[in-house]
Amino acid sequence: MSAVNEIPYKIYLEENEMPDKWYNVRADMKNKPAPLLNPGTLKPVTVEEISAVFCEELSKMELDDTTAYFEIPEEIRNFYKMYRPSPLVRAYCLEKALDTPAHIYYKFEGNNTSGSHKLNSAIAQAYYAKKQGLKGVTTETGAGQWGTALSMACSYFGLDCQVYMVKVSYEQKPFRREVMRTYGANITPSPSMTTEVGRKINAEFPGTNGSLGCAISEAVEAAVSQEGYRYVLGSVLSQVLIHQSVIGLETKTALDKYGIKADIIIGCAGGGSNLGGLISPFAGEMLRGENNYRIIAVEPASCPSLTRGKYVYDFCDTGKVCPLAKMYTLGSGFMPSPSHAGGLRYHGMSSIVSQLYADGLIEATSVEQTEVFKNAVQFARTEGILPAPESSHAITVAIKEALKCKETGEQKNIVFGLTGTGYFDMYAYQSYLDGTMKDYIPTDEDIAKSLANVPKVD
Amino acid sequence: MSAVNEIPYKIYLEENEMPDKWYNVRADMKNKPAPLLNPGTLKPVTVEEISAVFCEELSKMELDDTTAYFEIPEEIRNFYKMYRPSPLVRAYCLEKALDTPAHIYYKFEGNNTSGSHKLNSAIAQAYYAKKQGLKGVTTETGAGQWGTALSMACSYFGLDCQVYMVKVSYEQKPFRREVMRTYGANITPSPSMTTEVGRKINAEFPGTNGSLGCAISEAVEAAVSQEGYRYVLGSVLSQVLIHQSVIGLETKTALDKYGIKADIIIGCAGGGSNLGGLISPFAGEMLRGENNYRIIAVEPASCPSLTRGKYVYDFCDTGKVCPLAKMYTLGSGFMPSPSHAGGLRYHGMSSIVSQLYADGLIEATSVEQTEVFKNAVQFARTEGILPAPESSHAITVAIKEALKCKETGEQKNIVFGLTGTGYFDMYAYQSYLDGTMKDYIPTDEDIAKSLANVPKVD
Repeated sequence: MSAVNEIPYKIYLEENEMPDKWYNVRADMKNKPAPLLNPGTLKPVTVEEISAVFCEELSKMELDDTTAYFEIPEEIRNFYKMYRPSPLVRAYCLEKALDTPAHIYYKFEGNNTSGSHKLNSAIAQAYYAKKQGLKGVTTETGAGQWGTALSMACSYFGLDCQVYMVKVSYEQKPFRREVMRTYGANITPSPSMTTEVGRKINAEFPGTNGSLGCAISEAVEAAVSQEGYRYVLGSVLSQVLIHQSVIGLETKTALDKYGIKADIIIGCAGGGSNLGGLISPFAGEMLRGENNYRIIAVEPASCPSLTRGKYVYDFCDTGKVCPLAKMYTLGSGFMPSPSHAGGLRYHGMSSIVSQLYADGLIEATSVEQTEVFKNAVQFARTEGILPAPESSHAITVAIKEALKCKETGEQKNIVFGLTGTGYFDMYAYQSYLDGTMKDYIPTDEDIAKSLANVPKVD
Repeated sequence: MSAVNEIPYKIYLEENEMPDKWYNVRADMKNKPAPLLNPGTLKPVTVEEISAVFCEELSKMELDDTTAYFEIPEEIRNFYKMYRPSPLVRAYCLEKALDTPAHIYYKFEGNNTSGSHKLNSAIAQAYYAKKQGLKGVTTETGAGQWGTALSMACSYFGLDCQVYMVKVSYEQKPFRREVMRTYGANITPSPSMTTEVGRKINAEFPGTNGSLGCAISEAVEAAVSQEGYRYVLGSVLSQVLIHQSVIGLETKTALDKYGIKADIIIGCAGGGSNLGGLISPFAGEMLRGENNYRIIAVEPASCPSLTRGKYVYDFCDTGKVCPLAKMYTLGSGFMPSPSHAGGLRYHGMSSIVSQLYADGLIEATSVEQTEVFKNAVQFARTEGILPAPESSHAITVAIKEALKCKETGEQKNIVFGLTGTGYFDMYAYQSYLDGTMKDYIPTDEDIAKSLANVPKVD
């Protein structure tokens, strides 16, 4: 126990200890994720085909099943140095408050203006767009974390940034919209009348508040219909998980530096970008038979793709313009209750995370939102950081596991991903504090109804 | 120039390099700040007298002109470890954007949930309140940074926290209010009907939006009229500048570690808490004849206490219940235009900063807010961090000085205080981006009228 005192509250790597390569866990997977399918032909997409939508370098990365490490270009490493390394924090105060023998660590990705880990991939995608000589990129955003991250990245490289923002967030969460404008991005509430798919959705569902799946369709259409533009996405895709591996690689280096072996690794899971990035080097060790970890994906009970979805091919977007992916899905038409706060609202799950889950390398569990906010408040009061609702899903399970250790007396090392801060989610906190927050769990019928529309493939 | 490459983007001190003592610049001042006066007798206050309002240990610190260093208690050092050391950032990207030979550094205090440096003193004041066995503390807050910091600190030590929040902010900036509630604080819009002074102000100015000076009066009344409560203040006071010296001490250690000699040190100045904390070890060296620096205080043109105020005794609050301080002041009844965004709205200035300014150790300048926001946006786009409006006053002058270096070809080391983030100031950013933001400079008549009500002392 003498080493304990030597572990600082925050482990910061030196600049020269930061990763210079991203890790692609697919290279070590025996069962590769099923290929993306062309929505027209239902055949596996080629790099050429998806290069109409994504930048070329990113398209290659997207389909690469064999390259384990990708060099991080110097320009991106320099940008990373502006806000990375992120600290791996020893949660001394939370441990004390829980009176647990467990040691709790969290990798905190919120110390940048986007407020989350999303910047790690945004800067990579902007870099390759710039390198390809593009004018700009298009994307969608829900509450605005991804859009903010991309706005910052585009501003850095002098690219035009067009963001389709889910209408309800555009209207009700103006602050993140203004942050994006500060970075020079153009924001359009979605569904808009500027795209064909937007006009169609508006006609079909007049007065709709919009959804992420629908904003994706608009952003893709905007990308392919403008000269010099490509589409970029903040989660789900393999390329995003590759970029986000910087989280896991830093975490691993920091743990190794102090001789700490993680027992349990916990991440919240929406599309899988943070979870996939955090766990990939650890999952890699498991796949190579070098080590063993308990890995837990935590999703909201209101949008339970891993725990209650089906592992099938499905559309990634409502407008059905994107390639199909094999993934745990609730059906591309699934809409979580509007009373559900924060992100983690996506109907599907990264195909890498899906395959690892199908192969039993990771567990999944779901938690309800009032419980999540209870733990968010406890975390804020003990650790100081006001966590994002998304991150608080991971906090919730970390606390549960730490309390189990208290019962058993085990001193486990629990590591979780604290993806971001909740500064732009104060309405949700307010409804929790006022006691008006509701839980919502879809019925089996809701899910079956949505899954009935999943395309028949194979 | 070879050493340049060795300076990382962010200089983080190790935990064991963090200061274990605060520095009290008053001990090294030949001309001590004039004593606080009892508002009834107009005689210098005693520790006993002010102990009715402030905690005893803090009262002693407040009046201490001789102790140069105060031990930082272990409990406070442990709390500091949760969010400190704050990084000293080399602004490589800003330098490049400005094409300046100057080296620009900023001490970034925004990486904590209060979003600013205010937490450095809040935790100290809460600690001494707890140590004295108090039930709780009262305070005022404008936009909410100080209130948030104090809520966090009180939550950590299990103290009740009563915050009088300027009414216009309470209603129009509900997010920081909700952050404070998350940390368990009780928030009352000011002027309220819960205090005598609040009822009086409400009667005199029906429908008033409130002001900081008036919220101070209410908080002081609430403290002295409840058993087991004391009042705490986030700026202006000497004790606050002592706690905030942690900023300057860390900055100094980080610069020394890399052999960097600051040429110019720049801080925004409202009540003087950040500026005073940042500069105190540097001013100390000047006072002891060991070194020389150019120190620049930057204030808003709409509330120019140093550059256009008078150096006289004045009330610290509108209700005139607090001790009188000799300071640069615009008169305790001065109200900056409501169109002025962010903090730095206080009519007076820390008596330490005032005396250093009167003695010619520091310069002062004022800047207009549209210029400030222009530079805030440039800073956000180049350095990634979305700065608080307050901090952007310092950014503005740092950029000006860096551009002067470009003209002269000098490679000066410019260090400024980046006090916090602007995440809760997006309405102000929006008005700037929309082009509706106005500048406001009080006329000489405005100031003369307000100064006419300064009490006659001496």
